[in-house]
Amino acid sequence: MTALTTDFAQPTTDEYPTRKTTEPALLYRRDPVVWGDAAEGPIDRATLDGYEDKGYLQIDQLLTAEELADSRAELKRLSEDPELRRDERVVVERKSDEVRSVFDVHKISEHFAALVRDPRVVGRARQILGSDVYVHQSRVNYKPGFTGTDFYWHSDFETWHAEDGMPRMRAVSISIALTENYAHNGALMIMPGSHKTFVSCVGETPEGHYQASLTKQEIGTPDQGSLSILADKRGIDVLTGPAGGAIMFDSNCMHGSNGNITPFPRSNVFIVFNSVENTCGEPFSAPSPRPEFLGSRDFTPVG
Amino acid sequence: MTALTTDFAQPTTDEYPTRKTTEPALLYRRDPVVWGDAAEGPIDRATLDGYEDKGYLQIDQLLTAEELADSRAELKRLSEDPELRRDERVVVERKSDEVRSVFDVHKISEHFAALVRDPRVVGRARQILGSDVYVHQSRVNYKPGFTGTDFYWHSDFETWHAEDGMPRMRAVSISIALTENYAHNGALMIMPGSHKTFVSCVGETPEGHYQASLTKQEIGTPDQGSLSILADKRGIDVLTGPAGGAIMFDSNCMHGSNGNITPFPRSNVFIVFNSVENTCGEPFSAPSPRPEFLGSRDFTPVG
Repeated sequence: MTALTTDFAQPTTDEYPTRKTTEPALLYRRDPVVWGDAAEGPIDRATLDGYEDKGYLQIDQLLTAEELADSRAELKRLSEDPELRRDERVVVERKSDEVRSVFDVHKISEHFAALVRDPRVVGRARQILGSDVYVHQSRVNYKPGFTGTDFYWHSDFETWHAEDGMPRMRAVSISIALTENYAHNGALMIMPGSHKTFVSCVGETPEGHYQASLTKQEIGTPDQGSLSILADKRGIDVLTGPAGGAIMFDSNCMHGSNGNITPFPRSNVFIVFNSVENTCGEPFSAPSPRPEFLGSRDFTPVG
Repeated sequence: MTALTTDFAQPTTDEYPTRKTTEPALLYRRDPVVWGDAAEGPIDRATLDGYEDKGYLQIDQLLTAEELADSRAELKRLSEDPELRRDERVVVERKSDEVRSVFDVHKISEHFAALVRDPRVVGRARQILGSDVYVHQSRVNYKPGFTGTDFYWHSDFETWHAEDGMPRMRAVSISIALTENYAHNGALMIMPGSHKTFVSCVGETPEGHYQASLTKQEIGTPDQGSLSILADKRGIDVLTGPAGGAIMFDSNCMHGSNGNITPFPRSNVFIVFNSVENTCGEPFSAPSPRPEFLGSRDFTPVG
């Protein structure tokens, strides 16, 4: 055999090691943020540049008033369906016994399946990722008023890489607001620019970890020192906006949300698009992949 | 004896019944909001009108940069004083074992005593309350980053009336920010206009209730229905502002704060001024008054 360098694409090389050592680390992102360009879709150049810089973009009105009303009615129907309550894909809040999330909504609900296929939605995802895309995960979230709990800081990619085997940072999430997001009712918070740094976390993923992590994340939690460094750089953006609007954010954004003692609940539809050129393999830091409804193994392009 | 009507000031009449029945109620405020006028002090007419309408006012810069630095140094000294840790007036966060509040700071610290006597502070309080004032309560608060817990909705007056025997709504709080208040780090939230409605709460105050209520309020908690009515009327204001700024708010404002997962801690000095014409008597809904450091019985005017 001739001597080969290892300087070529190795899908099993771990570009973003995490949960492997006892010390946290800040690593450089090794992937582009925007893979397509302004000529290819509905997002204009300035908005794409903002996405590249901050790691997210906002759309003031994605849904019409009628579409919004239909989506809210469908959300209500799903949260009240007694059969769904017994489904593993339905997550119930520990204290209040209320539905907190319904996963796989694009499979469970024809209404939300159509929303995923909508060119306003999937078209933007294709443009950012520069390829065909498939749905890695979808869900609706319901964060109640008065007792809505916080969601601690995390990078989605860290979990998808460690537990779902997603190789590279080439995925984008869209959160479509079904209720108004105020600064005071637990809106999404993002550390702008944080998507360019990978926070390697400590700890080891136990078997079946996803069950606990759905209601409270323990492993894969960034350390306070790294969070302070990222937040001190450019602060924290609170992403407010009207119902029917949307946020798209990079898979590696450091994000979270505070609790919500206000009377105003929050609901959104959340869809993760991954590039078909970035399909998931074996987990990078977990004994086995999470269930299909959390990290799909069906890589059929949307469309 | 001649027959007298009861149509005169009766300090023992309960104008604001609470914790006496099993049903919550919304009652009209029976007191002015602003007792003085614009000619009497540092607050201008427009700001006084805003206070009357919303129940609060904001001061962008109350402290100079140097005064702010001095106050922060004093706060640090207090939170690290090992002797103070054993003092009943020092409240420690349950989970983290960190200092959350130091009460009676105007007695414990000469620095903060001088701040209370400062004409920029007490002058504004006198103007709003239209009389000499005394300190009903003072404290510094320290809300840590990452793990800062929420403070549920409440009217301070409800507690002061029920547990300290404060007869009328003629008290004002000033919160002086020692750190920047962002929308995302647990800033004070006020329901504007809520000070004109008294939410009568259910339940009965047990003996020694204040000990539990310092870290988590249970009795005297407004019901969700009343909170929704107040919030739906005019929404919720999140009171952001720079370090060195201040907020003054009416004793009956419905207020609270969300938790704080951000790395940014929050500290403030909090002083409650009560009119010398509104001194506290027997509690209206508690077996005995709270300790002096929570509701002072020393009615000596400031200054």
